[in-house]
Amino acid sequence: MEAYLDNSATTKVSDSVKNLVVKVMTEDYGNPSSLHMKGVEAEKYIKESREIIAKLLKIEPKEIIYTSGGTESNNLALIGGAMANKRAGNHIITSSIEHASVLATMKYLEDLGFQVTYLPVDESGHVSMEALKEAMTPETILVSIMHVNNEIGAIEPVEEISKVIKSINPNVVFHVDAIQSFGKLVLHPKKMGVDMMSVSGHKIHGPKGSGFLYVSDKVKIKPVIFGGGQMKGMRSGTENVPAIAGIGLAAKEAYENFEDKMTKMVELKDYFIDRVTAIENVTVNSKKGMESAPHIISVSFNGVRSEVMLHSLEDKQIYVSSGSACSSNKPSVSATLKGIGLSNDEIDSTVRFSLCYDTTKEELDYAVDTVAGMIELLRKFTKRR
Amino acid sequence: MEAYLDNSATTKVSDSVKNLVVKVMTEDYGNPSSLHMKGVEAEKYIKESREIIAKLLKIEPKEIIYTSGGTESNNLALIGGAMANKRAGNHIITSSIEHASVLATMKYLEDLGFQVTYLPVDESGHVSMEALKEAMTPETILVSIMHVNNEIGAIEPVEEISKVIKSINPNVVFHVDAIQSFGKLVLHPKKMGVDMMSVSGHKIHGPKGSGFLYVSDKVKIKPVIFGGGQMKGMRSGTENVPAIAGIGLAAKEAYENFEDKMTKMVELKDYFIDRVTAIENVTVNSKKGMESAPHIISVSFNGVRSEVMLHSLEDKQIYVSSGSACSSNKPSVSATLKGIGLSNDEIDSTVRFSLCYDTTKEELDYAVDTVAGMIELLRKFTKRR
Repeated sequence: MEAYLDNSATTKVSDSVKNLVVKVMTEDYGNPSSLHMKGVEAEKYIKESREIIAKLLKIEPKEIIYTSGGTESNNLALIGGAMANKRAGNHIITSSIEHASVLATMKYLEDLGFQVTYLPVDESGHVSMEALKEAMTPETILVSIMHVNNEIGAIEPVEEISKVIKSINPNVVFHVDAIQSFGKLVLHPKKMGVDMMSVSGHKIHGPKGSGFLYVSDKVKIKPVIFGGGQMKGMRSGTENVPAIAGIGLAAKEAYENFEDKMTKMVELKDYFIDRVTAIENVTVNSKKGMESAPHIISVSFNGVRSEVMLHSLEDKQIYVSSGSACSSNKPSVSATLKGIGLSNDEIDSTVRFSLCYDTTKEELDYAVDTVAGMIELLRKFTKRR
Repeated sequence: MEAYLDNSATTKVSDSVKNLVVKVMTEDYGNPSSLHMKGVEAEKYIKESREIIAKLLKIEPKEIIYTSGGTESNNLALIGGAMANKRAGNHIITSSIEHASVLATMKYLEDLGFQVTYLPVDESGHVSMEALKEAMTPETILVSIMHVNNEIGAIEPVEEISKVIKSINPNVVFHVDAIQSFGKLVLHPKKMGVDMMSVSGHKIHGPKGSGFLYVSDKVKIKPVIFGGGQMKGMRSGTENVPAIAGIGLAAKEAYENFEDKMTKMVELKDYFIDRVTAIENVTVNSKKGMESAPHIISVSFNGVRSEVMLHSLEDKQIYVSSGSACSSNKPSVSATLKGIGLSNDEIDSTVRFSLCYDTTKEELDYAVDTVAGMIELLRKFTKRR
């Protein structure tokens, strides 16, 4: 048996998305900038994808800028948002548990002279509203907070955050990294008070190299990549039409029978949490039910180093992550796990199981049974070293 | 019959590339940053692609930074190169006939305080060595010249340019936009004295959203997109493994039986030029033989507006470009055609036919016969307006 439980790292492309990508690559392969029919046909795929996503998010089709993925979306939101608003101030607020594509971009913005405040989180991984209020200054131009944390699945109170920001200064731009929540939670950025929102395709059974940034038409940004003026000048380069078509279809599929999918994932998550907690000396860092994301379960296996667990599970065709797996193989202490107060030992023994709407109870049983069957041996091994 | 003669805008993905992309999307879909086998498998595709391309270009595999395409490659080279070298000076040299992804990026660098010199070209589209020598100052840090012009196919004397630059100041970084020459000409950047070179996948039957920048290990650049530290920190974001595998295979295929392919394309080009020149009042702006690129033929049909010609040909399933088709539908006067001294009337009547290694004599005959059959009517139509 195989159990791929690393869906927050990346997902398998769905068959229908794959078929669409193939059709666009081999039949409707025109360049959307070409004035002839092959170009017009290609442009249609972009229009359709826009319409699908706009309907799902209750936004306007023109408020979508397609990018090469979540990292680029976050870069465009932060660099583009900071640059476009720098006359209004030079202060930016984010949290200490953001994805590397936000944290590393903030570092770059600091190099450019922006001041960045990193809000702490509580033991559940939630940003404190008090800390946010205190951080806001007349210089603040941009706030960026992730929706679902990629390591533990904590859901940030995005609507509440927006209210706090906007009540202090409605001109402050609020960006949300929704890469782990899109397709897993209902997202209506306008209703939520979100001005910009980053999404990635390969986390939802869409193609790698696909993503978009929602930018409210009330918000101004500057481009990061320059050229032929595609995406109204906000993202130049020949549109990756297969990827754009693919992310549209993947989005549609993710939100089809959404209640059922979410209910099933939450049930599976809770089931897994119950079973894994029954193993001695195991702590789950994610909440049950809708108190955290339906698909992410962070587990600390006391006394077993996470890489040892990961490779032991891999031997049984069970695929999980240590940390977030979004950074390039770099061994670094997780800011998220540290942020929620785990000790270094706990951090070192933490593994992430991440589900998708296709995950089965059998896969989870197989994973828990395997862990339960080998954990004592692994603990002995760890102690002996 | 159909004749797709817009291969310099984009190409159909080859069957073998399509099959490889599908395999990676649906079977070997892991995230290369994952530590388990699925991640390691994905990483292997990247390694293989690097090795293929490194061998073709006679460079080191580690000197390749994969990007989302040609535009991003040019942005990374220019912004990354300028930023990394700004302590040495603030002057950059380019030509006046570069692709929009270079010219628009130069405009951005000017906004940041860099000084940019735009070299003129002669009537063949070649950059003058004298103008280059004169433009070089002690402040010059970067020179960027395209290899093959995308509108007329002019081949810039890259080796000679490098010699001029390096004889004046060996520390000046020389970047070449090889997006229209990769797969069409032999490219050995180290031998040619090229420090950075941009390539796009979708121009060579590879996937859209694929590309890379060759960066000599002697050259330092700074990243444009920040995050998890992939590509040694020079291009963060989950690697687009299907695209990376795809561009590797497409590159391999482009250079397989290369002499035969090139000879065939040059013969077809010359054949087309001979036939189209036989039509009254037609000027060809591209050279025969190896004096210009084997796949690009720019033709001015005196007395017929290019869009009229384009749409008339489209009606007969013949697909061509007016101008370069790389800018997003924007009507703007071509800097290239202006640069080689065409009048506005000539520019307005210029159409680009672009071939690939699969183009047939029959397609070209069909295109020329169609043009010859309708040109007098179109001219009358134009006059009447």
